[in-house]
Amino acid sequence: MEQDKMTVGIVGLGLIGGSMAIDLKRRGFASEVLGVESEPVNAAAACRIGLVDSVVPFAECVRRSDLVVLAVPVGAAVKMLPEVLDIFSCMEKDGAQGGDTRGRCRKIVIDVCSTKESLVKAVHYHPARGRYVATHPMAGTEYSGPWAAMPGLFDGRAAIICDGHESDNDAVRTVERLYDALNMRHIYMNASSHDVHAAYVSHISHVTSFALALTVLDKEKNEKHIFDLASGGFSSTVRLAKSNADMWVPILTQNRDNVLQVIDTYIGKMKQFRDAIADDDEDSVRSLIEDANRIKRIIR
Amino acid sequence: MEQDKMTVGIVGLGLIGGSMAIDLKRRGFASEVLGVESEPVNAAAACRIGLVDSVVPFAECVRRSDLVVLAVPVGAAVKMLPEVLDIFSCMEKDGAQGGDTRGRCRKIVIDVCSTKESLVKAVHYHPARGRYVATHPMAGTEYSGPWAAMPGLFDGRAAIICDGHESDNDAVRTVERLYDALNMRHIYMNASSHDVHAAYVSHISHVTSFALALTVLDKEKNEKHIFDLASGGFSSTVRLAKSNADMWVPILTQNRDNVLQVIDTYIGKMKQFRDAIADDDEDSVRSLIEDANRIKRIIR
Repeated sequence: MEQDKMTVGIVGLGLIGGSMAIDLKRRGFASEVLGVESEPVNAAAACRIGLVDSVVPFAECVRRSDLVVLAVPVGAAVKMLPEVLDIFSCMEKDGAQGGDTRGRCRKIVIDVCSTKESLVKAVHYHPARGRYVATHPMAGTEYSGPWAAMPGLFDGRAAIICDGHESDNDAVRTVERLYDALNMRHIYMNASSHDVHAAYVSHISHVTSFALALTVLDKEKNEKHIFDLASGGFSSTVRLAKSNADMWVPILTQNRDNVLQVIDTYIGKMKQFRDAIADDDEDSVRSLIEDANRIKRIIR
Repeated sequence: MEQDKMTVGIVGLGLIGGSMAIDLKRRGFASEVLGVESEPVNAAAACRIGLVDSVVPFAECVRRSDLVVLAVPVGAAVKMLPEVLDIFSCMEKDGAQGGDTRGRCRKIVIDVCSTKESLVKAVHYHPARGRYVATHPMAGTEYSGPWAAMPGLFDGRAAIICDGHESDNDAVRTVERLYDALNMRHIYMNASSHDVHAAYVSHISHVTSFALALTVLDKEKNEKHIFDLASGGFSSTVRLAKSNADMWVPILTQNRDNVLQVIDTYIGKMKQFRDAIADDDEDSVRSLIEDANRIKRIIR
């Protein structure tokens, strides 16, 4: 498969899919980008913005693309992934386009979801499992839809490749090239530890922001007060609370056990603060804050 | 008091005091800026950076300044404020510099702390109470010290003036001009409702960030994982966890009752999330997220 002949099919033309479409084409990784988008308004917008060369039906996209990117919420991706691999298998049997000299299908499918275990489990025994590479590019904003897509979204961030040993070598190499084109660092991890880490470093941030927004909205019936008093600190802490329910409901429910564990740890830490403040115990408040300050060493 | 002859004394040359010093001088509100800084390293830095015209002892600063800004943590400000007013009273008795034609002291002192009730209570019956204006400029970053000071920090933000009816009219007018020079909107509020709103819109954001940092640091003993997996979302949510303990211990303990109430509301919201996820109740998770999304209307 020559890079200069690569057709990339992107299922879901939102923030992530749309931003990938822009940079994969602009940077020469894809010679053609096909898009699939079930929402007619979004599909029309994606065409108008010029994110993809054309919007086509799902099965056509899978048949015509050398590499398919599932950029839909994880609940939908879990259903689509076996369907994509089924089409790959059928095409191999039919000897259709996409096979190598020995008639084996060389097409590839990746997903870009925030949880990985449910996906790798869903296709563990699929005969075309080797053509799937589970990935998680760690990038995004709190906005969604084709209007939120932007060039350079992935530059300098980490792309996690999960359970690479279950994918064919050539598929992993091509996906590494794809993330190179997006200027991303590769990180290798197994799917279950990915989901634990994602719960701790990403998913909990969203839950804390949602809860913060609910708390403030609950108390401050007068929205003008929130607006007037919102310093930059509040705005940045609550930013993720704008995130889309379609994306986050399946993440939080599919990564249920890890998310529950981290919420429990988090509530425990909040209670330590609460008790120290309630007891007027300034030394404990200080040592909690100074402990938390260690995050400076890690986050810019 | 002519604006072109105004000497401003700033007690505490950190992020807030230092940034005020820069813009009040640059924009012509102050003809001279005196600084007080108890930490020798910070005092030397403030001189080297050129934040103030000179660093002088506390009492000298109060005697020589037309307007004194207490830009120290609220615990220290509560002790200093009566001392400043005492000096004002003494100078009035002595007929020293700073009196009007009837010998009344026309000097002004403001504070810029995040909690107001303890301050206004501390000087409620002071004979020079009218010369104090309680204020809270809603601006800042997670950094501290003279090195963090910057021009333009306050531009476009809100400056809250509390219990203005307890201050002399001319003092309030002058303080309004000061915040005009910093390009801030004025908001008027009583001290106790300021502290409630500040707990809900600002203080809780810091507590949730501290707790998030503690949760992640607790679980992720391997700091490299945090670094690798930290998306922009985590970084912005945890940003405030870098905030300084010297500033935040007194805020959280002095605003104790309001902060406890908001922490309790917050823990309640977290538990709603927890229960909905534990019950695999996708509808409830969705409705919590969509409720939280209302913050979009208020925060850019």
